[in-house]
Amino acid sequence: MSEPIAPRIVTAAVLLIGDEILSGRTKDANLGFIATFLGSMGIQVQEARVVTDDRDRIAEAVNALRRTYQYVFTTGGIGPTHDDITADSVAHAFGVPIGPHPEAMDMLTRHYEETGGEFTPARQRMARIPEGARLVANPISKAPGFQLENVFVLAGIPIIVQIMMDDIAERLESGAQMIARTIDCQVGEGAIAEELGDIQKRFPAVMIGSYPFFRDKQYGTSLVLRSVESVLLHEAVQATVDMVEKAGGQPVERDGS
Amino acid sequence: MSEPIAPRIVTAAVLLIGDEILSGRTKDANLGFIATFLGSMGIQVQEARVVTDDRDRIAEAVNALRRTYQYVFTTGGIGPTHDDITADSVAHAFGVPIGPHPEAMDMLTRHYEETGGEFTPARQRMARIPEGARLVANPISKAPGFQLENVFVLAGIPIIVQIMMDDIAERLESGAQMIARTIDCQVGEGAIAEELGDIQKRFPAVMIGSYPFFRDKQYGTSLVLRSVESVLLHEAVQATVDMVEKAGGQPVERDGS
Repeated sequence: MSEPIAPRIVTAAVLLIGDEILSGRTKDANLGFIATFLGSMGIQVQEARVVTDDRDRIAEAVNALRRTYQYVFTTGGIGPTHDDITADSVAHAFGVPIGPHPEAMDMLTRHYEETGGEFTPARQRMARIPEGARLVANPISKAPGFQLENVFVLAGIPIIVQIMMDDIAERLESGAQMIARTIDCQVGEGAIAEELGDIQKRFPAVMIGSYPFFRDKQYGTSLVLRSVESVLLHEAVQATVDMVEKAGGQPVERDGS
Repeated sequence: MSEPIAPRIVTAAVLLIGDEILSGRTKDANLGFIATFLGSMGIQVQEARVVTDDRDRIAEAVNALRRTYQYVFTTGGIGPTHDDITADSVAHAFGVPIGPHPEAMDMLTRHYEETGGEFTPARQRMARIPEGARLVANPISKAPGFQLENVFVLAGIPIIVQIMMDDIAERLESGAQMIARTIDCQVGEGAIAEELGDIQKRFPAVMIGSYPFFRDKQYGTSLVLRSVESVLLHEAVQATVDMVEKAGGQPVERDGS
């Protein structure tokens, strides 16, 4: 007789970066979301830290956490302003160089061409990515996060954290394989909210996320469907695509990663 | 001529103890309160951690934080159940014995006599205090917190945390009063990042934070300027308002809190 296989414990830590939570002015909304999200994948958040915008403090926390837990998720500090030092701090923690990432530069160049904004040196800072890192997509405001080994560097704005978690879900080990599919469409989410809710009710095994965006001076919505059940996921995606078409929303399936 | 006296910076860290915040089920209410309370005394919370109910993790965090910051405040884990291990973990961190504290035993004995409850062995655990610690009063449910050197061990229930902070306020050294002013504007932070960085360089004694938001389907930025130097803060705010106006961002000062 063989032993039963013990359930695999997958652990994680969350590192919130930024002065604003520590001053008491801002209540963090990301820890609860990330913990719940990971929990649904069987990944347990076992520690969280909040540090100021200080390179050495960030690097020290990143190194302590990445050696102790299977995954580390950071939030905040990847924007264009002087206090956005997370990417540099993470590069420092790993002892790797940092520089403009070609794909991130292309993506942001295109984004500012499309939106008519100037791709200033400050904005170009958002394409600085540590060597060896893999990008994390940001369909809302484009500036990417990144993954370096077991550390995931995310934005600070909760809605972007949420869509980034959807992007990286498939890179994480969990009890069962979670599959995500993303449908972009050209209607505001308010226009399809009820129908989407009905689809969610029909497919309780599929988690459906709805993320509004504003692009090319137009509102749109990214719909992210996740499930460990591939057949049900396929059916739910089909139902969603049909529903969006009926609403005149020109659904386009985007690559998961 | 004498040198100007540098404003005194007093630092603190907060350690939240308990699984429930890390599972995403409970939103913490203590960090914000403690940070605001200390901020009003000129004490800056510069780091926070959340750890599970695990002796070694708690002790490790206590030791790291008490050596780095002037004060440490822990919340949670001082009740009567098996998972309330904060007092033992703090004793372990300091390498001191722990046992029934005479004053705490008296207080709880009287409390249960008055309320007619039984002072069970489980409840008696709440009188276990590390050697050398000074009690922190808990007028609400009586089970005391304690202070060991620069570490203050408080309850987890927010209302008790609040009354305990009142009890210990007079034991804390105040620092220079940090003043914060917040300017909301209607431009994305990328559009003003460079100019803001220039202002930060001109006013190194003022900490300038930039926090993008997405509200009413529009991007905007909250600029938070903080300093213990009121004249410099005023000048930096003026420079920021002028800069935002030039960028067409309609600056509006928001109430500090």
